[in-house]
Amino acid sequence: MPVTMDPPPFPIRIAVFGGSECTDHIYEQAREVGRLLAQRGVLVYCGGRTGVMEAVSRGVRDGNGTVVGILPEEDCESANPFVTIPVATGAGSARNAIIVNSVQGAVAIDGQYGTLSEIGHALRAGKPVVGLDTWDIKGVRPAKTPEETVNAILELI
Amino acid sequence: MPVTMDPPPFPIRIAVFGGSECTDHIYEQAREVGRLLAQRGVLVYCGGRTGVMEAVSRGVRDGNGTVVGILPEEDCESANPFVTIPVATGAGSARNAIIVNSVQGAVAIDGQYGTLSEIGHALRAGKPVVGLDTWDIKGVRPAKTPEETVNAILELI
Amino acid sequence: MPVTMDPPPFPIRIAVFGGSECTDHIYEQAREVGRLLAQRGVLVYCGGRTGVMEAVSRGVRDGNGTVVGILPEEDCESANPFVTIPVATGAGSARNAIIVNSVQGAVAIDGQYGTLSEIGHALRAGKPVVGLDTWDIKGVRPAKTPEETVNAILELI
Amino acid sequence: MPVTMDPPPFPIRIAVFGGSECTDHIYEQAREVGRLLAQRGVLVYCGGRTGVMEAVSRGVRDGNGTVVGILPEEDCESANPFVTIPVATGAGSARNAIIVNSVQGAVAIDGQYGTLSEIGHALRAGKPVVGLDTWDIKGVRPAKTPEETVNAILELI
Repeated sequence: MPVTMDPPPFPIRIAVFGGSECTDHIYEQAREVGRLLAQRGVLVYCGGRTGVMEAVSRGVRDGNGTVVGILPEEDCESANPFVTIPVATGAGSARNAIIVNSVQGAVAIDGQYGTLSEIGHALRAGKPVVGLDTWDIKGVRPAKTPEETVNAILELI
Repeated sequence: MPVTMDPPPFPIRIAVFGGSECTDHIYEQAREVGRLLAQRGVLVYCGGRTGVMEAVSRGVRDGNGTVVGILPEEDCESANPFVTIPVATGAGSARNAIIVNSVQGAVAIDGQYGTLSEIGHALRAGKPVVGLDTWDIKGVRPAKTPEETVNAILELI
Repeated sequence: MPVTMDPPPFPIRIAVFGGSECTDHIYEQAREVGRLLAQRGVLVYCGGRTGVMEAVSRGVRDGNGTVVGILPEEDCESANPFVTIPVATGAGSARNAIIVNSVQGAVAIDGQYGTLSEIGHALRAGKPVVGLDTWDIKGVRPAKTPEETVNAILELI
Repeated sequence: MPVTMDPPPFPIRIAVFGGSECTDHIYEQAREVGRLLAQRGVLVYCGGRTGVMEAVSRGVRDGNGTVVGILPEEDCESANPFVTIPVATGAGSARNAIIVNSVQGAVAIDGQYGTLSEIGHALRAGKPVVGLDTWDIKGVRPAKTPEETVNAILELI
């Protein structure tokens, strides 16, 4: 019978919220956030699709990390190619709440109303949110750079 | 064999968002919104619990209307007693997205972060939102009284 | 200020499971089950679409009852025209669990694998299930006619 | 700017269904299924909790694989310690449908009504299911050993 060593505890889990479309500047910022989170050993969760979600996933790959893509669709076809672990919720935009449930804190980058709903879900659950160029909502701690963003969320959780 | 007449088309469906705790003043405002929506023949959807949700449900009863309570729990026990039709989603706060899916427009009254998530989901889905003493979010049309609120949302959908 | 009388307690809530396609014979059986449930004052929940779901909805209308259609889609467009209260979960086939959560017991009529999943969810939740021409599963009480079906489920809950 | 090589395509994704309680014999069978799937490079999805779910997770660890635990709760506390990637759906037993959406095929081991609902969801979605000491349902391909189970599901997807 195989002997299993005690598995390590779960890594720190952080979500990155952001829209399915973004400028090149935001894309590079989000990619850098993903890379830095991966380098700090964080397990990253995102919406798994295009725009900021793709940029973060790509950054996590740059940093040799793991990124979980929590998709709205009923299959994994729409996942961006940088996602490591696709999860097809089939829950539509209700998947935004599933992303929040799985993590200890979140970073919001840019984004539109979907991102606003994610910020609402996270703050309602009492989880810290750091914002980079995003909605100005009471309770979101603003940051100015990817480095500051990653340092701030790791400090808050 | 029974003959069924063509059923009438679905009534107008509007959600009311709001928190599980509120002041007496907000309670009366929310109750009046519920009553006015019912009098206009609207099928009202809400989160089915306490605070603004209870007030709206009660108002709908005052107006002899029907109110659907979309609950976060896995059973109907937590529904306020004024709900006509309880739905136990078992989906936690993801039920906020289910409320939005079912309606053509929404009213937000007061509320905290859960209400913010509902506003985000509604605006993301392109559905009009009228706000009464709630979050100041781009895209939410503010109103000052229950009457103005109900007139505005019926005009927008 | 309006005086609200104590609202009545929630009516008995029963789900009817069944497929989106069925024979004429099954359609008439399902319609009769819906009619009998409505005549007994039951609030009926179903999947809101075609086949057995439409037949049940139509029967509830025949009996002047109320039927809640819990839809898989993100909008109410796919509801059959006999549904009284549409709920658009956007949850895909996970909506089968939402139907189960909302009720005290269920009737399964005919059906394929979707119906099998509903039977599984109901029995797992410890809720009684009466079957009419459906899967032969341990724990499902079989019945032979619409009358026997309705009597049995009302006795079991 | 970092250069990202094309990420590899997603690995084969298979779910293992099974109950939260099981005998020692079933536990060892499930663990062996997990180990064999991991050795074949499969990304394994399960319900993330105790019993068969724990056994499979442990086996995947034995085989140096990755196992995604799709949990019913709103947080990751209930995950067994062998889960690599926890996802807290907050969806209750509706999470059974989310497991199915994410994979290309499934193995059912032992189990009660929750497992039956998972089999229903998978077959409804047209995904192959191989059964080891589980429900005798038309459409489930039975197998007698962990080896036969793993070979069969890899052949069918």
